[in-house]
Amino acid sequence: MTQANAPAGPPRSTLVITAHAGDFVWRAGGAIALAAARGEKATIACLTFGERGESAKAWREGKQLTEIKAIRRDESERAAATLGAEVRFFDAGDYPLVADAELTDQLVAVYRETQPDVVLTHPTEDPYNGDHPVANRMALQARILAQAIGYPGEGDIIGAPPVFYFEPHQPEMSGFRPEVLLDITDVWETKRKAMECLGAQQHLWDYYTDLAVRRGVQLKRNAGPNLGLAHKTMAEAYMRPYPQIAKELA
Amino acid sequence: MTQANAPAGPPRSTLVITAHAGDFVWRAGGAIALAAARGEKATIACLTFGERGESAKAWREGKQLTEIKAIRRDESERAAATLGAEVRFFDAGDYPLVADAELTDQLVAVYRETQPDVVLTHPTEDPYNGDHPVANRMALQARILAQAIGYPGEGDIIGAPPVFYFEPHQPEMSGFRPEVLLDITDVWETKRKAMECLGAQQHLWDYYTDLAVRRGVQLKRNAGPNLGLAHKTMAEAYMRPYPQIAKELA
Amino acid sequence: MTQANAPAGPPRSTLVITAHAGDFVWRAGGAIALAAARGEKATIACLTFGERGESAKAWREGKQLTEIKAIRRDESERAAATLGAEVRFFDAGDYPLVADAELTDQLVAVYRETQPDVVLTHPTEDPYNGDHPVANRMALQARILAQAIGYPGEGDIIGAPPVFYFEPHQPEMSGFRPEVLLDITDVWETKRKAMECLGAQQHLWDYYTDLAVRRGVQLKRNAGPNLGLAHKTMAEAYMRPYPQIAKELA
Amino acid sequence: MTQANAPAGPPRSTLVITAHAGDFVWRAGGAIALAAARGEKATIACLTFGERGESAKAWREGKQLTEIKAIRRDESERAAATLGAEVRFFDAGDYPLVADAELTDQLVAVYRETQPDVVLTHPTEDPYNGDHPVANRMALQARILAQAIGYPGEGDIIGAPPVFYFEPHQPEMSGFRPEVLLDITDVWETKRKAMECLGAQQHLWDYYTDLAVRRGVQLKRNAGPNLGLAHKTMAEAYMRPYPQIAKELA
Amino acid sequence: MTQANAPAGPPRSTLVITAHAGDFVWRAGGAIALAAARGEKATIACLTFGERGESAKAWREGKQLTEIKAIRRDESERAAATLGAEVRFFDAGDYPLVADAELTDQLVAVYRETQPDVVLTHPTEDPYNGDHPVANRMALQARILAQAIGYPGEGDIIGAPPVFYFEPHQPEMSGFRPEVLLDITDVWETKRKAMECLGAQQHLWDYYTDLAVRRGVQLKRNAGPNLGLAHKTMAEAYMRPYPQIAKELA
Amino acid sequence: MTQANAPAGPPRSTLVITAHAGDFVWRAGGAIALAAARGEKATIACLTFGERGESAKAWREGKQLTEIKAIRRDESERAAATLGAEVRFFDAGDYPLVADAELTDQLVAVYRETQPDVVLTHPTEDPYNGDHPVANRMALQARILAQAIGYPGEGDIIGAPPVFYFEPHQPEMSGFRPEVLLDITDVWETKRKAMECLGAQQHLWDYYTDLAVRRGVQLKRNAGPNLGLAHKTMAEAYMRPYPQIAKELA
Repeated sequence: MTQANAPAGPPRSTLVITAHAGDFVWRAGGAIALAAARGEKATIACLTFGERGESAKAWREGKQLTEIKAIRRDESERAAATLGAEVRFFDAGDYPLVADAELTDQLVAVYRETQPDVVLTHPTEDPYNGDHPVANRMALQARILAQAIGYPGEGDIIGAPPVFYFEPHQPEMSGFRPEVLLDITDVWETKRKAMECLGAQQHLWDYYTDLAVRRGVQLKRNAGPNLGLAHKTMAEAYMRPYPQIAKELA
Repeated sequence: MTQANAPAGPPRSTLVITAHAGDFVWRAGGAIALAAARGEKATIACLTFGERGESAKAWREGKQLTEIKAIRRDESERAAATLGAEVRFFDAGDYPLVADAELTDQLVAVYRETQPDVVLTHPTEDPYNGDHPVANRMALQARILAQAIGYPGEGDIIGAPPVFYFEPHQPEMSGFRPEVLLDITDVWETKRKAMECLGAQQHLWDYYTDLAVRRGVQLKRNAGPNLGLAHKTMAEAYMRPYPQIAKELA
Repeated sequence: MTQANAPAGPPRSTLVITAHAGDFVWRAGGAIALAAARGEKATIACLTFGERGESAKAWREGKQLTEIKAIRRDESERAAATLGAEVRFFDAGDYPLVADAELTDQLVAVYRETQPDVVLTHPTEDPYNGDHPVANRMALQARILAQAIGYPGEGDIIGAPPVFYFEPHQPEMSGFRPEVLLDITDVWETKRKAMECLGAQQHLWDYYTDLAVRRGVQLKRNAGPNLGLAHKTMAEAYMRPYPQIAKELA
Repeated sequence: MTQANAPAGPPRSTLVITAHAGDFVWRAGGAIALAAARGEKATIACLTFGERGESAKAWREGKQLTEIKAIRRDESERAAATLGAEVRFFDAGDYPLVADAELTDQLVAVYRETQPDVVLTHPTEDPYNGDHPVANRMALQARILAQAIGYPGEGDIIGAPPVFYFEPHQPEMSGFRPEVLLDITDVWETKRKAMECLGAQQHLWDYYTDLAVRRGVQLKRNAGPNLGLAHKTMAEAYMRPYPQIAKELA
Repeated sequence: MTQANAPAGPPRSTLVITAHAGDFVWRAGGAIALAAARGEKATIACLTFGERGESAKAWREGKQLTEIKAIRRDESERAAATLGAEVRFFDAGDYPLVADAELTDQLVAVYRETQPDVVLTHPTEDPYNGDHPVANRMALQARILAQAIGYPGEGDIIGAPPVFYFEPHQPEMSGFRPEVLLDITDVWETKRKAMECLGAQQHLWDYYTDLAVRRGVQLKRNAGPNLGLAHKTMAEAYMRPYPQIAKELA
Repeated sequence: MTQANAPAGPPRSTLVITAHAGDFVWRAGGAIALAAARGEKATIACLTFGERGESAKAWREGKQLTEIKAIRRDESERAAATLGAEVRFFDAGDYPLVADAELTDQLVAVYRETQPDVVLTHPTEDPYNGDHPVANRMALQARILAQAIGYPGEGDIIGAPPVFYFEPHQPEMSGFRPEVLLDITDVWETKRKAMECLGAQQHLWDYYTDLAVRRGVQLKRNAGPNLGLAHKTMAEAYMRPYPQIAKELA
């Protein structure tokens, strides 16, 4: 539901808040590439490099912490560029990522600066990775604080942009239920290229390709008539924690 | 998400399946009026007249069953006309409405005839009225049967149109959570006029007006920036049992 | 919360609807004895004798169906008399008990005749006994139908008496959560005597005594200050599917 | 269920623990006024003034933090006096309110001093305001600590007073289900007057009046026979996280 | 947990109860092949041929009902033979499959004849196929009836064999959560061959191969140390509606 | 499901992480004694002595904090020795136990040292004792951190050992559902002796004996055929937050 019949303003803005350097690629690369393809702005707030918890290959190769962070940053920046987005790192330390007032305050500043029309983040549960729920809580809390005129800081307060939770690695174990199936067929090649920037996690390239196929099958299975879907539809799944605002049921 | 970029075909079609003669007015009158205002077709399949369970005033006035059915039919037809929709009655008997293979088969025929792009019906639970969940189950079952080429009957099979559950009388007790807030401000006067056709349930006119105000407040509270909402936004709430199909997150 | 500050009328009335001949004793014997001890009326609508599913001992002894029904009826009547209640049998056949319009209609008649102030029945789930949820559904449906002036039958329509679900045999597996803990210490001896009328299920006497002790411990653990509870408090647990109506929070 | 058949002791005591200066008025004003009308003591522990998150009007008028706190304190004290209660402020800072061992310890002291028979606080979830769940957690934790003889501090340990969660602003989105409907008709005028003390949130006066009407309609719909309810019943809704202790089912 | 330390008796017996001719292959083919490979007996009770709801290809090719049933029976029997199991058809009619006392009674007879040590069937929910939950309900009800000495019929009563729900087509939408991950690597080739017997649903061969890979990845992710898992582990997922009985935690 | 067909290695290792000195006895004493009886290693990481929250008797007798800790330590060590396990105390302070990075890090070290094949801890909820959920969260977080090669510390990383939640004091109020019923009949006398080491909580000896009887009854009710169960089966109940890995369904 595009509600943006508003007169010419700044381009729409998407804010993605993630725990680790690769999350935005596997889980939301399609949505980001779609936004970029529409000429919109996409900003990724990446709280850590995933240097401890998601870089097992590098550790096994005997690399050191600083080097690993640099590798993950580089990979991540190339992936973001491929998708057409900007990525910002907060280097807050992973495994564990710790919720923190100062870090939350930095996120409030990002909200007020980017004035997002859409927010993407992790879902609330993940029994396999404690950093993801922590990122979720800070992302949601900062969104509420950024709405309050009484909360100090630079920039204008924000409205109440819709929030989408992207898909965790083990969806059924994390209470994840596909509430939105996003057709990413048109940008699939871009997402695949972005995934291939992430050499540290090469075993996931095919895994997330298969997932996109499966979510595409599901999209077609749930689609109304006359959609003219491609034979091979690729999709990403999302949850919506807040109600959808609509001018038409569809 | 308007999926109707398809080339010129028949106008979009909305199918509303309800238990009693007044349900479509209180719970979905705004959505129906919006569809009609867009030049679309809306068909209401009304399984009973609500003659036993929702006509207490008439019974207290000493009216007889046949007379009460006639009154409810007349009221309901005038309300449907006001909204711009067609209503069909199945006179299946209420309190209790009983799930039935033949009645379900008639609903399959309606699905295949109307080829709906959108389906509206009751949610799955209602601890205050057993007829509503029964209507829900038949509506959902008939939708699935109508998709199967092997299920006999006239007309073409249907796709998988999205389903929306409208709001029950006691939402928190029925597991109802607003997942879609539909802006009905533009057709509010029409909905109010349709409600006023229902003389048998006059005590509900203001009740459902207050509900529309409250859902409107909630809509604004959940709306992103730049929506240009009216000062007094009126809304209806819906649940989505199936995933939303989207080409854009918004 | 005794809301019966109403002027002198008929004594308060409790209606218990159960699947099998012994259920009201194990699960609600304390509540029934308390009502009787207050001089109130208690009526048990017992849908079957539990002749097939809950009379294993008699079948193993080679008894026949008619004989078993007679035994269960006799035991049950003595238990009801011990508690101070009236029991009525519907002999609808157990294992499986089948939901049925005629049987539901008979329950509507019981509701309208007894005009209950309180209704007790099985909870909605029981993965170990399918008859219990069926009894629940008929009990709830008949309660709603009995409220409708348009539903035909003898007697006055009823109000909306509160409903309590008593405890199933395996509570955690049946979604049962103690929402009300009823102090039955004063009538415990009566309940134990009623249980001992049920010779067909002797293995349950101590089982349900232990349960009463455990629920009593829980009652004390959840009790506010100054309750003056007995050293050995005995209790029964209930769920409330509908909201409690209160004039005071306590 | 009035359990206070205990011999003459101190008057019953109600403790209300809230996040912001206005919460106790909108959400529990009726319960507080009822307690006061019965000659009981009611104490409100107000953790913050709501100075940042719930004072948008004052910020837009250019007021400063200290001034805003003073305004909210004054409004809140007048509202409490109108209801017949005492309010104590902890000035812990809102948006965000942070859970804190020292603040929790202060709440333990309040529990031990006031020896509450009833505790009212926020429910566990609120996706629109993070301070409310934080207040809930501290209120519940302090209640448990105050029960332990080994937890240091002044005053006697407390029993296990029942807890009631009052209604959040968007109940269906916060997992709120009305489990108790409290009839506040007799003190409605007092609650309305208390609401009118809150000039900073004038837009909520009618909103919460409408809510009381709606909860009143629901109360009547769920009430048993013979309640002699007023034509216009006003009500507040509560959840009960712990089991109700009862001497009678009603 | 192999509980079969019992002295030599009949081989262990697995009973699979399914709605349509192909279900046991896609969803439980690995478990069946494993049982057969251990020299155990596996019996599939197939309630319908899936002639209307799961044979779209045949209908589009203009085939008739009788012919389609024959095709599905043939495919299904070849798949069962491939897995090493016996399949029995009840031809109860699909789309919709209707719960029925006589059909349930036939299932009771199968339980008593096969004396299963393990039961596999559909889970309780499937918003995309109403026949699956109906098969679930009859399978569970017949299991309980078959335990009762008072329920008439041939054969000995059964114990309480554990039940496993196999995976539906859209797990997250059907409340399915993997509670058991079964390693089927050793029999994977057999399962694939059995799938290839089902020419009517060729589009599912790769779909369910991908699923087995994904469940295998998940198995490894959840496995304790020292399991010596194959590089490419294939798995099937199951739910357990009843508690696991164990002599050791592992 | 013994998956340990692996060649001779170190004996299997069980790690129990609990909040207070007595928890491992009441809730998991049977599982620990079974492991010891099989010649395996069991290590209990006890975060506090339960000195404030679970030593009411000692406080009422006027004992001091140091003395109480010493008593609880002594009792606990004797109980562990009775069961055949080693207990380690962290003296982190109870009522409230506070989640802490350093304490979590110490648990990571214990995981890496003991290399557990099985982990036992508290479930996620307990509305009567806030320390239990805190212990749960640290136990789960440390397990994940200990798996990461990038997380610093001594010892080898661990695999993904299965986790079992033992039973809380008020199971239905804590969302506890028996998912595994462990037969502890063979070690029952040992568990009883261990319980009798805990003189500070003597009122619980019979309470937890009754619980073992009740869980034993439930075990038999859920057991398949041919189990040859003892007349008086004693059991403990557990939840499984992660999927069971199996080579056979049973």
